[in-house]
Amino acid sequence: MAELHLLSPKGFRAAGVTAGIKASGKPDVAMLVADDAVPAAAVFTSNKVVAAPVIVGRDNIASGKLRAIVVNSGNANACTGKQGLKDAARMCVVTADAIGSLAGEVLPSSTGVIGRMLPMDKVETGIRDAASKLGDSAEHALAFGTAIMTTDAFRKHAALTVKLGRQTVTLAGVAKGAGMIGPRLATGPKQATMLVYLTTDAAISSPALRKLLIPAINRSFNACTVDDHTSTNDTVAILASGQNGAKVNTMPLAKKFGDALAELCVRLAKKLVSDGEGATKVVTVNVTGAKSPSDATKIARAIANSPLVKCAMHGNDPNWGRIVSAAGYCGAAFDPDKAVLVVQGTPLFRKGQPLPFDAKSASGQLKASEVSVHLACGLGKAFATVYGCDLSKEYVSINADYTT
Amino acid sequence: MAELHLLSPKGFRAAGVTAGIKASGKPDVAMLVADDAVPAAAVFTSNKVVAAPVIVGRDNIASGKLRAIVVNSGNANACTGKQGLKDAARMCVVTADAIGSLAGEVLPSSTGVIGRMLPMDKVETGIRDAASKLGDSAEHALAFGTAIMTTDAFRKHAALTVKLGRQTVTLAGVAKGAGMIGPRLATGPKQATMLVYLTTDAAISSPALRKLLIPAINRSFNACTVDDHTSTNDTVAILASGQNGAKVNTMPLAKKFGDALAELCVRLAKKLVSDGEGATKVVTVNVTGAKSPSDATKIARAIANSPLVKCAMHGNDPNWGRIVSAAGYCGAAFDPDKAVLVVQGTPLFRKGQPLPFDAKSASGQLKASEVSVHLACGLGKAFATVYGCDLSKEYVSINADYTT
Repeated sequence: MAELHLLSPKGFRAAGVTAGIKASGKPDVAMLVADDAVPAAAVFTSNKVVAAPVIVGRDNIASGKLRAIVVNSGNANACTGKQGLKDAARMCVVTADAIGSLAGEVLPSSTGVIGRMLPMDKVETGIRDAASKLGDSAEHALAFGTAIMTTDAFRKHAALTVKLGRQTVTLAGVAKGAGMIGPRLATGPKQATMLVYLTTDAAISSPALRKLLIPAINRSFNACTVDDHTSTNDTVAILASGQNGAKVNTMPLAKKFGDALAELCVRLAKKLVSDGEGATKVVTVNVTGAKSPSDATKIARAIANSPLVKCAMHGNDPNWGRIVSAAGYCGAAFDPDKAVLVVQGTPLFRKGQPLPFDAKSASGQLKASEVSVHLACGLGKAFATVYGCDLSKEYVSINADYTT
Repeated sequence: MAELHLLSPKGFRAAGVTAGIKASGKPDVAMLVADDAVPAAAVFTSNKVVAAPVIVGRDNIASGKLRAIVVNSGNANACTGKQGLKDAARMCVVTADAIGSLAGEVLPSSTGVIGRMLPMDKVETGIRDAASKLGDSAEHALAFGTAIMTTDAFRKHAALTVKLGRQTVTLAGVAKGAGMIGPRLATGPKQATMLVYLTTDAAISSPALRKLLIPAINRSFNACTVDDHTSTNDTVAILASGQNGAKVNTMPLAKKFGDALAELCVRLAKKLVSDGEGATKVVTVNVTGAKSPSDATKIARAIANSPLVKCAMHGNDPNWGRIVSAAGYCGAAFDPDKAVLVVQGTPLFRKGQPLPFDAKSASGQLKASEVSVHLACGLGKAFATVYGCDLSKEYVSINADYTT
């Protein structure tokens, strides 16, 4: 079986082109188009500083239907005032014009440097160029994934199939993001630069899609962190073409579809952190036995975000005191006398006491592409998992000289 | 006039010796002794994981009097269970024995790696050695300051005089700390590895000392951050010998003394961040016009702690979008359309709009040992200042291989 990709679900075409927005000359305009305006859902950053495309996108998703997604990389169109809003709206108009839809059916995204005006002549030319190159092959999916990248070292995509009754539906997605990754997508009753686009050929209503997307996001993108810096542009959008015929219209089917969606999102989230700027490994922090779910998340995030923990992970240094002390300062209920810490299968600290361990072997175990940290708090039944990464000198290289 | 130091206030002696706790062979036991048990105040970390010496120290400061402070570096005596508590208590007993005081009049401190038992034979020998070498010269003050260091690149001390009526009193202090610096000293109604010891020759009661110490700490140590990782051992202690004769016993005198104390603490806090692990510059973040004091602090801390902002500062990169977006995700009230950002005197962003600026000249202005970031929020009257530093590759070098 050929590998699944963003366009494996029927009913979608995509393209990625070079418009000259990036100084590097790399591809920077991407487009995903459904055959019709289809049920869709999207969630956006909870940052109070929101990029212009997010403001436009929030409006356009309100109808629950989308025909297309248009993305530029190389410029975030954030902190750009009224002109920025006009430009984001214009991206939708030009896209709609080129593919024959309504501007309100287009979701725009931008990613790159904050505070610079979009070079709209280049953007418009790029959009028209992309619209003329749409296709549904694996190459088209790759071109889309490439054109949305910024500091990403590799493309991030994932796809899976799930049986709903007698029919098999496909879910697929691409993600971009390596820095400014600390998504806090607004999944509450109201509504990075992480960009995630998901497709499926299942037939599902827009409200159901949204309802299933939110827990999937909370378990994945909202639980991953590179630098904990929530972007102004974070966007996750899903489009359901319905071209498979399988209907997600009962509770059991919704549960199954939702689980598959969450699994897809977790795979993409782990790819995001594995490509965290300068990262050499994924650090999965499992907190169990916390007093409340929010305490569990606080503890897991504090551990995953501590620069001291991240550097220790980078150096394969079993300096577990940094982990336990991070749990202690994050504001969550925590009692070291009840806690047990296990790193990569090795118990290091148990109920207030350090445990004897072989430092060399513990260090050796940390030389892995994925490291597991498990802190059992012994205070309750709540748990959380957060996906982080290590902190390397390369991170500083990448970020000390980004705009100049 | 000779430079003031920790022992300039009359009534104190100090020593610093090498006991072999540190593998490096550098000095690692320090002692500060007052001529008598004198009024004192101390505040400790708010981390829920507290080192053994902090537990003992909290008990011993309860009386409001201290005769001595004993410190070891190279081992934090944290997460060491009951044996750790016995060892911290033993440090007080051995000190009291050597100088002829009560164990309850001694405040112990430890700093270094978490989770290892103190080598008590070495510690005890070191304490007796230090007690035999006490003196009140500048060299003795230096020896104390050196023996409390861990990853510090230089000694941090400050001193000043203040006129109280017709008499001039002296306030002096030493501090240590370069990493695990995100102090949240418990200054609330109940009660980093940052260690700070302050001396004064003023005559002041212990309750008054504590009352003045708390706002001074909130303006200084609780407003400085290197990695925002609150330590298990953070301690600030002040001893007042009263040997000057100047009494701090009226409201105006207390105000003047308190202001001087705060000034001293700010100077030491800035020295701490200027020696932040790998730091090449101090970044002072001023937030004004916030809706509430806690919002002002949240915004200032988020900016100072963002790894993206810290790397930009390191690279002299005027990437101001990182600053504004950090303000947006920290949970404080913030509206970019009302905010103005000025970095090193250059306005970069004003009420939702980027301002034109010369990138080369703005980058040049960032090549300074102290950089000022001022974000005016336009929402209220609250303000906060936080002292941070940049993030360099050297930070990763220092922390990727600390225990192994």
